[in-house]
Amino acid sequence: MLIYDLEKKGDKPLYEYIYECLRDDIRSGALKSGSKLPSRRQMSLDNGVAEITVANAYAQLVTEGYIESREKRGFFVSSDLDAFTQEIESLPEAKESEADEVSADRKGYRKADAPEEAVHSKCINLSVGSLPEESFPFDTWSKIVRRILTEERSECIKAPEARGMLRLREAIAGYLSRSRGFTPDPERIIVGPGTEYLSSILLNIIGRNAVVALEDPGYKNISNLYESSPHECVHVPVDENGMITDTLSENNVKMVHVSPSHQFPMGCVMSAARRASLIHWANAGQAWIAEDDYDSEYRFEGRPVPPLIASDPGRVIYMNTFSKTLSPSIRISYMILPDELYSGYVKKHIFQSGSVSSLEQLTLASFISEGYYERHLNRTRNMYRKRKKAIFDIVQGGELSGLFDLEGDGSGMTFLLHSKKHVDDKVFLDSIRKRGVRLNSLADYCYNSFDFARDRYVVNFSSVTEEQFLYAAHVISESVRG
Amino acid sequence: MLIYDLEKKGDKPLYEYIYECLRDDIRSGALKSGSKLPSRRQMSLDNGVAEITVANAYAQLVTEGYIESREKRGFFVSSDLDAFTQEIESLPEAKESEADEVSADRKGYRKADAPEEAVHSKCINLSVGSLPEESFPFDTWSKIVRRILTEERSECIKAPEARGMLRLREAIAGYLSRSRGFTPDPERIIVGPGTEYLSSILLNIIGRNAVVALEDPGYKNISNLYESSPHECVHVPVDENGMITDTLSENNVKMVHVSPSHQFPMGCVMSAARRASLIHWANAGQAWIAEDDYDSEYRFEGRPVPPLIASDPGRVIYMNTFSKTLSPSIRISYMILPDELYSGYVKKHIFQSGSVSSLEQLTLASFISEGYYERHLNRTRNMYRKRKKAIFDIVQGGELSGLFDLEGDGSGMTFLLHSKKHVDDKVFLDSIRKRGVRLNSLADYCYNSFDFARDRYVVNFSSVTEEQFLYAAHVISESVRG
Repeated sequence: MLIYDLEKKGDKPLYEYIYECLRDDIRSGALKSGSKLPSRRQMSLDNGVAEITVANAYAQLVTEGYIESREKRGFFVSSDLDAFTQEIESLPEAKESEADEVSADRKGYRKADAPEEAVHSKCINLSVGSLPEESFPFDTWSKIVRRILTEERSECIKAPEARGMLRLREAIAGYLSRSRGFTPDPERIIVGPGTEYLSSILLNIIGRNAVVALEDPGYKNISNLYESSPHECVHVPVDENGMITDTLSENNVKMVHVSPSHQFPMGCVMSAARRASLIHWANAGQAWIAEDDYDSEYRFEGRPVPPLIASDPGRVIYMNTFSKTLSPSIRISYMILPDELYSGYVKKHIFQSGSVSSLEQLTLASFISEGYYERHLNRTRNMYRKRKKAIFDIVQGGELSGLFDLEGDGSGMTFLLHSKKHVDDKVFLDSIRKRGVRLNSLADYCYNSFDFARDRYVVNFSSVTEEQFLYAAHVISESVRG
Repeated sequence: MLIYDLEKKGDKPLYEYIYECLRDDIRSGALKSGSKLPSRRQMSLDNGVAEITVANAYAQLVTEGYIESREKRGFFVSSDLDAFTQEIESLPEAKESEADEVSADRKGYRKADAPEEAVHSKCINLSVGSLPEESFPFDTWSKIVRRILTEERSECIKAPEARGMLRLREAIAGYLSRSRGFTPDPERIIVGPGTEYLSSILLNIIGRNAVVALEDPGYKNISNLYESSPHECVHVPVDENGMITDTLSENNVKMVHVSPSHQFPMGCVMSAARRASLIHWANAGQAWIAEDDYDSEYRFEGRPVPPLIASDPGRVIYMNTFSKTLSPSIRISYMILPDELYSGYVKKHIFQSGSVSSLEQLTLASFISEGYYERHLNRTRNMYRKRKKAIFDIVQGGELSGLFDLEGDGSGMTFLLHSKKHVDDKVFLDSIRKRGVRLNSLADYCYNSFDFARDRYVVNFSSVTEEQFLYAAHVISESVRG
């Protein structure tokens, strides 16, 4: 039984105190590497605290690598701590402060200047597409929600149509007409709780024996989804002009999933020649192009890249999401089906239950149709443009220059760092992770194209401040220099 | 081009005026049966009104059968109006008032007494499970949403876990422990936007070549979903004791989807013997029982029926939803996976994107953990109990007595009307539908068991007031008497 004296917690939050007690016991060796912790329920009963408190403490310890969760068995003190017992004991919390000092020394990064989150944050995460809190329009959203819950009660509690409420589909059609240069029929728009959900419907409509093609490297969740479907999958290499389309015909591909406006994670725009060849291929073979237009809203310079659907609506399924522009917590995406696939949708899916709550659909519909969405995009585009510029300056003029080339066309929230000298991925990424910086290698997004991915890293800067990136760049450069 | 003089609309809503203009032109024959209407977009441009206004007017005309939407082609004046041109012209809006008068005559149903919705409603729908507006706790919900959008901003915009946010899973576990007699591990709970979504995940986990069994009659959306999966489906007949389990072993079934607490649409509880045989079968053959516990909250008399999972968590996947107790507009359901299936979930699905918005998850979590959900259930249980009693009194003591037997155990929102004399489904249902009453025959929920379904009709009373049901009963009895 593990019981801690809660009287001693002082004015810390309870979970933090329990976290610290456990951490210190692990560091001191009182809790042995590999030993099992009490279940969260047991721990909460033994200490007379809520289970959520224990859950939070455990989660923090997992994040920091002190303990690990083993499937079906519970929580254990991490087994790889043995090798570092001494270091762990002798350097309590030294990692961050050391880094800060060195950094302050060399690059003018002064702790006092750094915003609170940069100093307190245990982790600067360049590997995920979360959005900063200040980007979300809380006040407007809250105002609209309240209005709908007061004035539109009967709409609010109606079961939503499977393909989404008409009001939202009309709002989306209007937005696309104003912003993306094509005007879809709202009847052809299907709303769902994410691109993965919609993709699985699409796979179901095109038929079980169809061969499908994906970008390599590409969005891992989509690739996993396609791979776990009954379809045969072909992984097509991507270069700086987008997907290499030559081999599609050879492989008898029926549908290809691409992101022409801003390839993820490479950050490139598909060249005009490749676009043309893709459309030619689709028409020649009566095949389908699933055009994932995600992130196209964040083009910071020049004119927007027109989507494929604007040139050929007959063979293109246009897909986009609000999770990347509003918040990843809002689970609303949509796709636009050409006639033949729409008929398939009607046959198989139109009488299913809706998949997105009515309140959220109504809120988003008003948010778009009252002009807030486009204002939001303008505001956040400016915000990210500034952030991107500052971060590019750090890469090209700061500690990383000479070490890395910057790749990608500068639109969207991601770019690539290409190391000039060969780096061992695991050593490098582990070493920066220990100092609180998380980064994914391009290989993490690859299916086959590992050679191409060598020494390339994917930076997602959407949720990272200039100060945080300055610190991250310092840690990265130190690790690469060795 | 169809242009109407909008000056003449008076103080009617614009959509209603356009609806009336079109309806009158159809009745008078100015718009010929089978002729194409302008697209909603064109109509809106020609008349200088919003497209949504036209969409609403068209929708109303579709509902009333004046026009029909043809896939990919647009809207047409209904082609079956020709036969009734005279009646339609000579009896403008006669259907409802006539019915009201007759009803007032015979059964003490006085127009002045009827609540507004009964008089104005174009349709009394006994075929769907929508919930009455007064059942939803708008004020509490609104208060919690606002609080979360103000005080929990960082939680609000975080991407939710694929299986649902821990806070919601813990709240659900707590509720089940207090109300359903078993305490699941929150780790094993998977949250999704509906039972169909969760079922498709389940089908994916149990493996592609497994045979699955369904109740016949049963919930149509689930049966369609299973049928459109790569799995072989067996449709097992249901009698008044629930699913007839004898044949499961013969058919090499790997998973069965059942609703033991309240079979839909039969309304019966699975007998203890059948329960025992089901659990025996699952253990003997290492098979799975997907226990759909939907509607179990609305047991009006006696003790709650314990779920199968309480007797054998090893082979049971427990499923339930908030769409039936809170609102069909809220797309949150959950399932609880036994160990083996949970491992499969972790492998294939745990890294997918979440499928339910964080704001709605957080709101529901607070709603449950602060005690509102159980209070809501008590309040609505009382409301539906009264409604059910009044409606049963009408069936057993009013115009329907002698014509129909009432079947089902009286729990939940549905029961069966079993006609004592043989009725031609199509003639009967069309005739009541023309007088504004919608009802489904039991055959609509059947896959093979049509003999059993003969002369049986499914009544869903959740959204129908006593006055509306009185009118519906009158229309039904007149139609059956012929």
